[in-house]
Amino acid sequence: MKAYRKEKDLLGAREIPADALYGIHTLRAVENFPLSGRTVHPALIHAYGAVKWACAKTNAELGYLPEEVYRPLAQACEEMADGKLDAHILVDALQGGAGTSLNMNVNEVLANRALQLAGKQPGQYEFIHPLEHVNLHQSTNDTFPTALRVAAIRLLKQLENELVRLLETLQNLEKKFAHVVKIGRTELQDAVLTTMGRTFGAYADAISRDRWRVYKAEERLRVVNLGGTAIGTGITAPRRYIFKVVQHLNAITGLGLARAENLIDATQNSDALVEADGILQTCAVNLHKISNDLRWLSSGPHAGLNEIILPARQAGSSVMPGKINPVIPEAVMQAAMTVMGNHTRLVQACAAGNLELNAFMPLIADALLENFSLLTKASHILNRMALKDLQVNEANCKKQVENSTAILTALVGRLGYEKIQQVAQKMQQTGQSVREIVISEGWLDESTFNELTSAEAVNRLGTEERTK
Amino acid sequence: MKAYRKEKDLLGAREIPADALYGIHTLRAVENFPLSGRTVHPALIHAYGAVKWACAKTNAELGYLPEEVYRPLAQACEEMADGKLDAHILVDALQGGAGTSLNMNVNEVLANRALQLAGKQPGQYEFIHPLEHVNLHQSTNDTFPTALRVAAIRLLKQLENELVRLLETLQNLEKKFAHVVKIGRTELQDAVLTTMGRTFGAYADAISRDRWRVYKAEERLRVVNLGGTAIGTGITAPRRYIFKVVQHLNAITGLGLARAENLIDATQNSDALVEADGILQTCAVNLHKISNDLRWLSSGPHAGLNEIILPARQAGSSVMPGKINPVIPEAVMQAAMTVMGNHTRLVQACAAGNLELNAFMPLIADALLENFSLLTKASHILNRMALKDLQVNEANCKKQVENSTAILTALVGRLGYEKIQQVAQKMQQTGQSVREIVISEGWLDESTFNELTSAEAVNRLGTEERTK
Amino acid sequence: MKAYRKEKDLLGAREIPADALYGIHTLRAVENFPLSGRTVHPALIHAYGAVKWACAKTNAELGYLPEEVYRPLAQACEEMADGKLDAHILVDALQGGAGTSLNMNVNEVLANRALQLAGKQPGQYEFIHPLEHVNLHQSTNDTFPTALRVAAIRLLKQLENELVRLLETLQNLEKKFAHVVKIGRTELQDAVLTTMGRTFGAYADAISRDRWRVYKAEERLRVVNLGGTAIGTGITAPRRYIFKVVQHLNAITGLGLARAENLIDATQNSDALVEADGILQTCAVNLHKISNDLRWLSSGPHAGLNEIILPARQAGSSVMPGKINPVIPEAVMQAAMTVMGNHTRLVQACAAGNLELNAFMPLIADALLENFSLLTKASHILNRMALKDLQVNEANCKKQVENSTAILTALVGRLGYEKIQQVAQKMQQTGQSVREIVISEGWLDESTFNELTSAEAVNRLGTEERTK
Amino acid sequence: MKAYRKEKDLLGAREIPADALYGIHTLRAVENFPLSGRTVHPALIHAYGAVKWACAKTNAELGYLPEEVYRPLAQACEEMADGKLDAHILVDALQGGAGTSLNMNVNEVLANRALQLAGKQPGQYEFIHPLEHVNLHQSTNDTFPTALRVAAIRLLKQLENELVRLLETLQNLEKKFAHVVKIGRTELQDAVLTTMGRTFGAYADAISRDRWRVYKAEERLRVVNLGGTAIGTGITAPRRYIFKVVQHLNAITGLGLARAENLIDATQNSDALVEADGILQTCAVNLHKISNDLRWLSSGPHAGLNEIILPARQAGSSVMPGKINPVIPEAVMQAAMTVMGNHTRLVQACAAGNLELNAFMPLIADALLENFSLLTKASHILNRMALKDLQVNEANCKKQVENSTAILTALVGRLGYEKIQQVAQKMQQTGQSVREIVISEGWLDESTFNELTSAEAVNRLGTEERTK
Repeated sequence: MKAYRKEKDLLGAREIPADALYGIHTLRAVENFPLSGRTVHPALIHAYGAVKWACAKTNAELGYLPEEVYRPLAQACEEMADGKLDAHILVDALQGGAGTSLNMNVNEVLANRALQLAGKQPGQYEFIHPLEHVNLHQSTNDTFPTALRVAAIRLLKQLENELVRLLETLQNLEKKFAHVVKIGRTELQDAVLTTMGRTFGAYADAISRDRWRVYKAEERLRVVNLGGTAIGTGITAPRRYIFKVVQHLNAITGLGLARAENLIDATQNSDALVEADGILQTCAVNLHKISNDLRWLSSGPHAGLNEIILPARQAGSSVMPGKINPVIPEAVMQAAMTVMGNHTRLVQACAAGNLELNAFMPLIADALLENFSLLTKASHILNRMALKDLQVNEANCKKQVENSTAILTALVGRLGYEKIQQVAQKMQQTGQSVREIVISEGWLDESTFNELTSAEAVNRLGTEERTK
Repeated sequence: MKAYRKEKDLLGAREIPADALYGIHTLRAVENFPLSGRTVHPALIHAYGAVKWACAKTNAELGYLPEEVYRPLAQACEEMADGKLDAHILVDALQGGAGTSLNMNVNEVLANRALQLAGKQPGQYEFIHPLEHVNLHQSTNDTFPTALRVAAIRLLKQLENELVRLLETLQNLEKKFAHVVKIGRTELQDAVLTTMGRTFGAYADAISRDRWRVYKAEERLRVVNLGGTAIGTGITAPRRYIFKVVQHLNAITGLGLARAENLIDATQNSDALVEADGILQTCAVNLHKISNDLRWLSSGPHAGLNEIILPARQAGSSVMPGKINPVIPEAVMQAAMTVMGNHTRLVQACAAGNLELNAFMPLIADALLENFSLLTKASHILNRMALKDLQVNEANCKKQVENSTAILTALVGRLGYEKIQQVAQKMQQTGQSVREIVISEGWLDESTFNELTSAEAVNRLGTEERTK
Repeated sequence: MKAYRKEKDLLGAREIPADALYGIHTLRAVENFPLSGRTVHPALIHAYGAVKWACAKTNAELGYLPEEVYRPLAQACEEMADGKLDAHILVDALQGGAGTSLNMNVNEVLANRALQLAGKQPGQYEFIHPLEHVNLHQSTNDTFPTALRVAAIRLLKQLENELVRLLETLQNLEKKFAHVVKIGRTELQDAVLTTMGRTFGAYADAISRDRWRVYKAEERLRVVNLGGTAIGTGITAPRRYIFKVVQHLNAITGLGLARAENLIDATQNSDALVEADGILQTCAVNLHKISNDLRWLSSGPHAGLNEIILPARQAGSSVMPGKINPVIPEAVMQAAMTVMGNHTRLVQACAAGNLELNAFMPLIADALLENFSLLTKASHILNRMALKDLQVNEANCKKQVENSTAILTALVGRLGYEKIQQVAQKMQQTGQSVREIVISEGWLDESTFNELTSAEAVNRLGTEERTK
Repeated sequence: MKAYRKEKDLLGAREIPADALYGIHTLRAVENFPLSGRTVHPALIHAYGAVKWACAKTNAELGYLPEEVYRPLAQACEEMADGKLDAHILVDALQGGAGTSLNMNVNEVLANRALQLAGKQPGQYEFIHPLEHVNLHQSTNDTFPTALRVAAIRLLKQLENELVRLLETLQNLEKKFAHVVKIGRTELQDAVLTTMGRTFGAYADAISRDRWRVYKAEERLRVVNLGGTAIGTGITAPRRYIFKVVQHLNAITGLGLARAENLIDATQNSDALVEADGILQTCAVNLHKISNDLRWLSSGPHAGLNEIILPARQAGSSVMPGKINPVIPEAVMQAAMTVMGNHTRLVQACAAGNLELNAFMPLIADALLENFSLLTKASHILNRMALKDLQVNEANCKKQVENSTAILTALVGRLGYEKIQQVAQKMQQTGQSVREIVISEGWLDESTFNELTSAEAVNRLGTEERTK
C-alpha cells in the first residue's frame, strides 16, 4: 500500500506520495499545464540548483539560515546543480506563470531532499521549508532569469567548443583539397574556376565568425537580476544579501556574472536574450548554407554535380539497396530550420512582456536553450559524421573543368577574345574539351595549359597587370 | 551477462542486445542523429503501425506474404497501432533522410515483434524480414507521408472535439453574463457600451469558425500516396497491390482516405500540410487573442480592469502570498506562440523540397503533429481551468459604466448633444457619476436611466430610427 | 502665390492648400506617421470608394442625405472606386489608429471632390461634410475591414486568373515533354526513372490545388461587418440602414458579400484574414519549390543537371558575357519568401487584437494585399517569362539515363538481380553506359532495351504482376 | 514626336527614349520584374554611386580610364552619390539575378549621365561605355554587397542618432517623474510599489543597450568584398586595383571599410547581414514592449489603468468625437512587427545562398534597409509625438496606490503580518483605503505613512536589515 502525506496551499489540501521530493505546488502545476509534454531543459535545472545554492550560502553567512538548515540544503543544491535531481522536476516546459511553477518545484525538491539528508521525512517543512528557507529573499522573477542566463552561458561554451572542432575540420579540408581545381558557380550556372580548398575555406571562415560571435555573446548574458526579487526593487531582500549573492553565484559557477545596475530594467526586459538568439540565427544560416551545398555537391552519383562523396552513414533507401543519401546535412538543415522557428516564437514572446515583468519566460527559456543544444549537436554531427571522412571526386572535378566554358576566362589573357570564341564554338560543335581543342590547335602546349588552369593560378588574387 | 546478436548492413556488422526489438538500421540512426532529443510523436508511430498492417494485409491477400509470416506480422502491426510498441521507436524526431530511419525502425520492430509472436528470436530474419516482408512493396516515401496524414487526421478529430467543448463553455458564459453591461473598448480606450455576454459571444463565434475549419481540413489530408513507392511511379509494387492497399488502410483506420490520382505530385509536394497548418494558425490566433483579453480583463484586483475573476489554480507568487496570476491564459498564449514558431519552420521545410521528394518530412511531421497536440491541450486547459469557473465582477463593471463617458453615446438620443457636454464637464469637475448627474439635474428619472443603459438596450442592433 | 484654406480639428487650426482634396485630418496623419513611406494599396482605396458609395446610397434612400449632397458625393465615390483619386490618399500604409487616418483621408477627399463636382470650393464643408455626410452612420471600425475584404476578394480573382494561366502552361509542358525519359531524384541522389512530362504534371497538380484553394478562400472573405459601426453594436446607425447597406455594396461591386450575424465578433476578430493568408502560403510554397527545381534543372550548362533550358531574358553577368542566369525563378522565389515574411507579421498582428478591436488593421491590410499582388505577379512572370518558352535538353536527359544506376531498377524484372549487379560493377570499371553493356553482353536487344526504358514503360503505374 | 535611340544586347535590339539615362539592360529588367512595385532603397543607390566612383578613381589612377572618360564619369558618380539620379533607377526592389539588374541600371545611368556632362548624347557608348568603362574590373557580385554595406552603415548611424534622442527623452521622463509612486504589476496583477521614474528608467536602459548594439553592429558591416569580382578570386581585376579600390571608397565615404581577407567567403556568405538584422530585432522588441506599455498605461480614461496621458495627435474616432487613441504607439508596434516579418524573409534568403553566390541579395537589401529605416522613423515619432509631451496622471497613481494591497508589502516591516492581514480584510469589507485604515486605527501617523510609501522609500534597493 502506497503511503501519502498531506500538503496544503491556498486552494486546499492534497495528498502527495510520502516519499516524493516534489510537493503540492508542483502537483498543481502538473495538473494545470499538461501542455507540451516537454520537460524543462536540464541545463536550466542545474543552473537553478546553483542559484539556490548561492542564495542559501548568502543567507547562511548573514545569519538568516541556521547551520542545521543550511548544511543539508547546500548539499541538496549541489546535487541539483550536478544533475542528480532532474527526475524530480516535473513541470511542463511551457508552464504559465513566468516560471513560478519551476521555482516552486525546485524549492520543494530542494527542501525535501535536504530533509532527507538531515534524516527527516519529506514534508516535514517545519524543519526546512520550501518558501521560508529555500526561497528566502528570492522571487521567481529574479531567480528564473538568472538561472536562465547561467544555463545559456554554459550551453554557449559547449557550442563554442563544438564550433572550434568543426572549424578545425573545415580548415583541414581546406588544406587537403587545396590542389583540386573545380568549377565555381554563380546563380547555379558555371562561372569561373575555383578550388575545392577555397570552397572549404569559405565555410571555415563563416564558422570562424560564428565561433567568435558565440564567444562574444557571453558578455550579453552575464548581467543578472538576482537580488531584485519581485520587480527589481529588491523588496523583502536585505541590502547586504543583494550585494553578496551574485559573488557567491560566481564562486559556485566559475562564471563572471554581474549584478545589473538597473534591476527594474533587468527584471522586465529580455532584449539580451533576443540578441543572443539572434546570434544563433547566424550560426543556423551558415550551417544551413554549408549543408545545402554539401547535399548538392554530392548529388549524383551520375546525374548530379558529383564533386564530393559524403561518407556512407546508413542505408539510404528501403527500395534502392545501394543508395546513399546525404542524411547528415539533411538533419543539420532541419536543426537549422528549427532554430529559426524557435526564433520566431522567442522574439514574439520577448516583445510580449508587459510592465514590470515578462510572463512568458518559460517559453523563452525553452526556445533559447533548445537552440543552443540543437546547434551544438548539429555542429557535432556535421563535423564527425559528414566532414571528417569526406572525399572529393577529383576526376569528375577535373572533367567538369575541362568541359566547361568557365575555364575560358582563365585563358583569355593569353589567347585573346577571338580565339576564345573559336574554342567556345568548337566545343559546342564537336563536344571536345577545352584542353583538347587548344592543344590540338597548337595555341597552347600541355604544360602551359596545365599551369594556367592550376590551383596556384586559380588561387592567385586578381589578374596579372597588363603592360600598358 | 548481457547477450547480443549480430546484424549486418552495407556498412558492416554491429552487435544488438539479443532481446531488442530494434535492429541495426535503428542503431545507425540513433548514432547518426543525437539531435533534438525529442522522440517521434506517438500518433505517427501508431499510424505507421496501421499503414504497415494494411500493406501486410494486401500482400497476404495477393499471395505475396505466406500465412505464417502474415499472421504474427499483422498482430505486431496491431500492437504498434495500439500504442504498445512506442518504447521501441528510438530514432530522433529530426532524423535526416526523409523518414527512412523511422520506417526502418518500424520495420525492424515489427519484424522482431512478429518473430517473438511466432515463437522465434529477434534477429531471425530468415523467417520474417524487416525489408523483404514488412516493407514489401513499400518505400519510406509513400508510407511516411501516408502515416503522417493518418496521424494528422486523428489528432485533428481530437482537436475538433476539444474545440466543441470550449465552444459550449463560451456559449454558456455568453448566456450566463448576458445581463452584465460593461464598457466596450477600442484601441484600449473607453468607447461605447457592450455586455459581458457579447464579449464571450464574440469568442464563441471565433472558436466556432475554428471548429468548422478544423473539420473541413480533414478533406485536405485525406489524399495519400500509398502505393507510389519511391517517387510515385509505383515502381517495384504490383499494380493490384497499389489498387487495394488504401482500401485496407481505410478498413483498419475507419478513415475515408483516397489514393492520390497523381502519385508523383503527392510524393513530392506537401502543400496540403502547409494548408492544414495554416488553419491551425487561425486557431492559435484566436486562442491567443482570447487569452490575452482574459489576462487584461482580470487585471487588478485594484489597479486594473478588474472585470472578471479567473479561478485560482495555484499560488501566484513566492513573495506575495495571496497573489493569483492568470497562469492558464499565459500558458495558452505560450502554446499559441509555439504553434506560430512551428509554422515558420514547417513552411520553410515544405518550400525546401527538391525534385521528386521532400527530404525534410521528419521536421514537417514534428511541427505539424506538435501543433495539433498543443492546440488540443491548450483548448482543454483554457476551457477546464480558466473558463468553466470564471466569475464576473458585476459591481465593478457597473461602476465603470456609470463613471465613464462611454455611456454618454447611449444617452445622446434622449438628452441631445448640449446636455451631454454639460454632463461630461460636470463629471470632470465633480467626479460624480453620470447616473448621479443626470438624475440630480432632473434630466432623466432612475428607471429611464436604467432602461437606456440596460443590457437589452445595449444589445439592440443599431439605433431607433429618428422620426424625420 | 499659393492660396490656402483654414481647417480646424480638436487640436486647433491648420492651413491646407486651397485646392487640395485632402483636409486637416489627413495632414495630421501625414505628420504623425512618416513611417514606411509606402502608400496604401490601391485596391484598398478603390474598395473604400465602393463602400462609401454604398453607405451614401443607403443614406440617401432612407432620407438621411439630401439629393444635392448625394448626387455629387456618389459621383466622387465612383471616381475613387475607379482609381481616379488614388493620388489624393496620402496616409502611410502603416499608420496607427486602426485605419482611422485612411478613413478620414477618404472622407475628406470624397467631400472635397464632391464639392468640386457641385461647383463649390474644397473646404466648404457647410455643404458637404467629411464626417456628417460622407461618414454618416459609419465608423472606421466597420468600413475599413469591409473595404479590406472587398479589396482582397478582387485581388483574389486576379490571382486565380493568373494561376489558371500558369496551370495551362504547365499542362502544355506536361504533354509536350511526356516522351522525355529522365532521372528521378530523391534526396538529390539518382533514384529511378521518370519523365519530363510527369515533372511538369506534378507542378501542374500543385498549382491546380492552389487555384482551387484561392477560389474557395473567397467564401471566407465574404462576411463583412459593415453597419456595425464602432464595436459591432451598430450604435449611431439606424436599423434600416444596417439592413440595407450590404445589399447596396453588393450591387455596386457585383460581389456576394454577407453581413456578419455577429457584428461584435466580426469587428474584433481577424482570423478569416489569417486563414486567407494561410492559403497564400501554400501557393508561395509551391511557387518556391517549382522555381527552385527550375533553377537546378537548368544548372550548368556543363557542370550542372542541365536538363532544361530557360529562355534567356537578359544578360546574366557584367563579367562573363554569354552567361544566362535563372533570373525569373530567382525573382519568384524572392516573392515567395516575402509572402512568408508578410505572414509572420500578419499572424502576429491578428493575434495582437485587444478587446473590441484590432488596432493593427493597417498592417494587416498592407501584408495581405501585398501578398495577393506578389503572388499574382510572380505567377505571371513565371508563366510568361520562364515556362512558356522553356526547352528541354533531351540529349542530356537521355545520356544521364543511360549512364545512371537509376535505370537498373527498370531492368531488374527482366534481367534478375545477379546480372544487374554485374552491370553495375562493369559501369564503374569501364565507364560504359548501361545500354552499351546489356546489348554487348547480349542480355537484351536494342528494341527491348528501348521499350523497357521508354516513356510508356516509365509512366505505367506499378509493376507487371510476376506470375506466381 | 518622341525620339528614340537603338540599343543592343544578346537578345536583340530595342528602342530607348533618346534622352533616357537608362539603357537596354534596364529596360529588360523592368519588363522581367514587374513584381513588388517597390523601388530600390535610395540609400543603396547613393552607396552604389560612391562605389562606382571609387572604382573609377582607382581605374583612372592606374591608367585604365582616360581622363576624358574619368572626369565626367566621376561627376556622374558624385551626382548619384548625392541622390540626384534616383529617378533613373527603375528596376524593381525584388529583381532576380543577385543584383545584376541594379548594377546594370547604375552602369547605364552613369554612362549616359557622364556622356551628357561630356557634351555627348545618351547612347554614344563609343565614348563612355556602361560595361567597358563604368563597370571596369567589377562585377555585380562585389559591387552590390559592398554598396549594401555602405548603405547599411549610413542608415545605422541615422538609427543610432535617433536612439540617442529617444534615450534623452526617456531619461528626462525618468527624472521628471521620479517622485510619482505607482503600482508595479507582475503578470498584470498588482504587485508591489515602484515609481513612474523607474518605469521610464527601465525603458531608457533598454534603449541605451540598443544604441550601443547598433553602434557596435557597424564593425560587422565594415568588411567588404570589393575587388573580388565574380566569385571572390578577383578574376579580370588587376591586383593593384584590388589593393587600392577600398581605400578610395573610404576616402569618398568617410567610412572605415576593410577589404575582406577571404574574398571568396565574403562573396557567398551573408551571415554578417543576419547578425546586423538580428540586432535590429532587439531594438524592435524594445520599441514594441515600450509602446505596448504606453498603450495600456494610458488606457481609460475611466475604465483603464489611466496612469499616463499621451499627447493628443489627431482625432481618435469618426464616431466618438472627443476620443483620443494611442496612435503613435500603435504605429510603432506596426513598424516593429514589420521589422520582425522582414527578419523572417531575410534569414531565409541568407540561408538560401548556394555555392559561390547568394542569388537573393536584392531581397536581403530590401529587408535590411527597410528595417533600418522603419526603426529610425519609429524611434523618431515615438520620441517626438508620444513621449516628449507625455503627462502623468499623478492623482490616479496615488489613488491606486492607496487602494491597493500592493502597498501592504511596504508596511509589513513596521506593522507585522497580523495587522497587515487585518488591513486587507478591512479594505475588502469597507472599501476604505489603506491610508484611511492605518491612520484611523492609530497604527501609523500621517507622516510615517507618507514616508513609508514615499518615492525615496520605494526607490531604496532592498530592505533595511532587521536587527537580529
